[in-house]
Amino acid sequence: MAKRLGRQTVELERPVCIAAHAAVGGKKEGEGPLRRYFDHLTADDTFGEKSWEKAECKMQQLALQLALKKWGREAEALDFLLAGDLLNQCISSSFAARESQVPFLGLYGACSTMGESVALAALLIDGGGARTAAAVTSSHFCTAERQYRNPLAYGGQRTPTAQWTATAAGCAILSAQGVGPRVTHVTVGRVVDKGIKDANNMGAAMAPAAADTLLAHFRETGLTPDYYDLVVTGDLGKLGREILLELTGDEGLDLSGCHNDCGLLLYDLAKQDVHSGGSGCGCAGSVLNGYLLRQMAEGTLRRILFCPTGALLSPTSTQQGESIPSIAHAVSIEV
Amino acid sequence: MAKRLGRQTVELERPVCIAAHAAVGGKKEGEGPLRRYFDHLTADDTFGEKSWEKAECKMQQLALQLALKKWGREAEALDFLLAGDLLNQCISSSFAARESQVPFLGLYGACSTMGESVALAALLIDGGGARTAAAVTSSHFCTAERQYRNPLAYGGQRTPTAQWTATAAGCAILSAQGVGPRVTHVTVGRVVDKGIKDANNMGAAMAPAAADTLLAHFRETGLTPDYYDLVVTGDLGKLGREILLELTGDEGLDLSGCHNDCGLLLYDLAKQDVHSGGSGCGCAGSVLNGYLLRQMAEGTLRRILFCPTGALLSPTSTQQGESIPSIAHAVSIEV
Repeated sequence: MAKRLGRQTVELERPVCIAAHAAVGGKKEGEGPLRRYFDHLTADDTFGEKSWEKAECKMQQLALQLALKKWGREAEALDFLLAGDLLNQCISSSFAARESQVPFLGLYGACSTMGESVALAALLIDGGGARTAAAVTSSHFCTAERQYRNPLAYGGQRTPTAQWTATAAGCAILSAQGVGPRVTHVTVGRVVDKGIKDANNMGAAMAPAAADTLLAHFRETGLTPDYYDLVVTGDLGKLGREILLELTGDEGLDLSGCHNDCGLLLYDLAKQDVHSGGSGCGCAGSVLNGYLLRQMAEGTLRRILFCPTGALLSPTSTQQGESIPSIAHAVSIEV
Repeated sequence: MAKRLGRQTVELERPVCIAAHAAVGGKKEGEGPLRRYFDHLTADDTFGEKSWEKAECKMQQLALQLALKKWGREAEALDFLLAGDLLNQCISSSFAARESQVPFLGLYGACSTMGESVALAALLIDGGGARTAAAVTSSHFCTAERQYRNPLAYGGQRTPTAQWTATAAGCAILSAQGVGPRVTHVTVGRVVDKGIKDANNMGAAMAPAAADTLLAHFRETGLTPDYYDLVVTGDLGKLGREILLELTGDEGLDLSGCHNDCGLLLYDLAKQDVHSGGSGCGCAGSVLNGYLLRQMAEGTLRRILFCPTGALLSPTSTQQGESIPSIAHAVSIEV
């Protein structure tokens, strides 16, 4: 039986294995510092499809197929598929799931989805409801821009705090058996909203949610940050990271020596014109399932706390003057 | 440890109790045959808010508050809140969760959400990841119409196969302990798409998904339909129900004697101008947490199989010529 360590954190009874993983990326991701960690990169961001939405769906299918190939098993060996994305009605995930025919649990956690899906998959496997599960997510710069901001052809000016939605997808296959890094704890986030209303400053909106979840994780587990080789958020970007370090520092949790952010890892901020850094479900999704898990396989990282954040706004809520509720889910992964 | 009976069905080790439940509805729902089973009804579909979206959010908050009150505990006693809705980026659920401060897992299953959330809550509790969890969903006629179809003021003509999105919300509180009806099995659905493209005929699009899940449930459990007092889908409506009975009948599963649909129960089809019946997450959500669970408490129903369906389309996917992928999740509930 899993052990609840507090309000938000669960220690798994038998750590659940990440048996295989894959990352898919587009042109800009292939020009960034993590290019060699992707399983599939393309210079054609349409992925051969007729719309950006279909391209994003294709990315999810590719990520799942590549992870299954590395796992050496077929989709029939998966008990559940847990997936979500940023698009209205999560169509990238639902349409991708149509192909695989795996029992499907659709999620919406915005850019925290890779954390939510891995956390739920691990809890379901630990509890005996599943033996295996795939956690998948994606984002596409072109689908996100036109849905959340402006038509691409409009060429709107980006603010300095803006982030760049990654064209990327990630898939992790979790299993009760097998070798590979293991999920040992999950910390499920609460919705936090400190009143930020600027939809071009997601880092500031999401940093308090990351702080809330990370503070809960360390308080409830009794661990200190030096237990981890890396505490890694999903897409806070440059500004959001600074706010996170300040917020946690104020509470006596010093993350400055061990923290990084997938949005800062995925791109070269000085050269790739991504302003405050990368964002989108696919940012944390591809950095976890590409770079981070490979670093764990190579032994460079042995213990990480993966904590992606999601901004739970919609264009409608913004137009109605609402602030931006955010959430972060943390997952401990150890070799 | 839960027992997997097949590809899709899990038998819980210790049936999980539905310790409390509440249903909230609007004006039309209060004029229907189930009016006396709602915990809160209002003639003001704005629920005192300035937008339809805020009204829908308020309904979710009310449903949770009323269920907590009947449970006799505070939100702090909930380990997880699982919720989702139809709105872009599921804002009704996320904004409602902001108030309660319960660790939150956002879902997207369209109108299957009440099934998905109860199934996941039961699996998490059975597996030890939680002791308690609330499953919540909602829909609002006015938010759905303007998002999926036309501005309300446009006064578009409705087709005979169209359904009426319920202005309603439901909340079930599940617990490892307590008295009340118990969840014994869950059958997680696969995405099914038979090529229906008519966004005004959701019943036809979703019926094959309901058939797929119900066939899996009876095949994997070895039960026959007469085991249940009622097999109840979420919002297939009149036409979808006919298609479901035909599809399952063709496979040798005769549901004609025990099947009904929440979309047919919620309204008086002859008098309330809802065409093919009710729909929306709140339809199955309120009928389960109002009428059905009260019937179980009164002893009129002792065993039900609750199987809401969701159409996983978006206006964008429809505009791009896509057909409608659908899903259904089934939950066995017994007194």
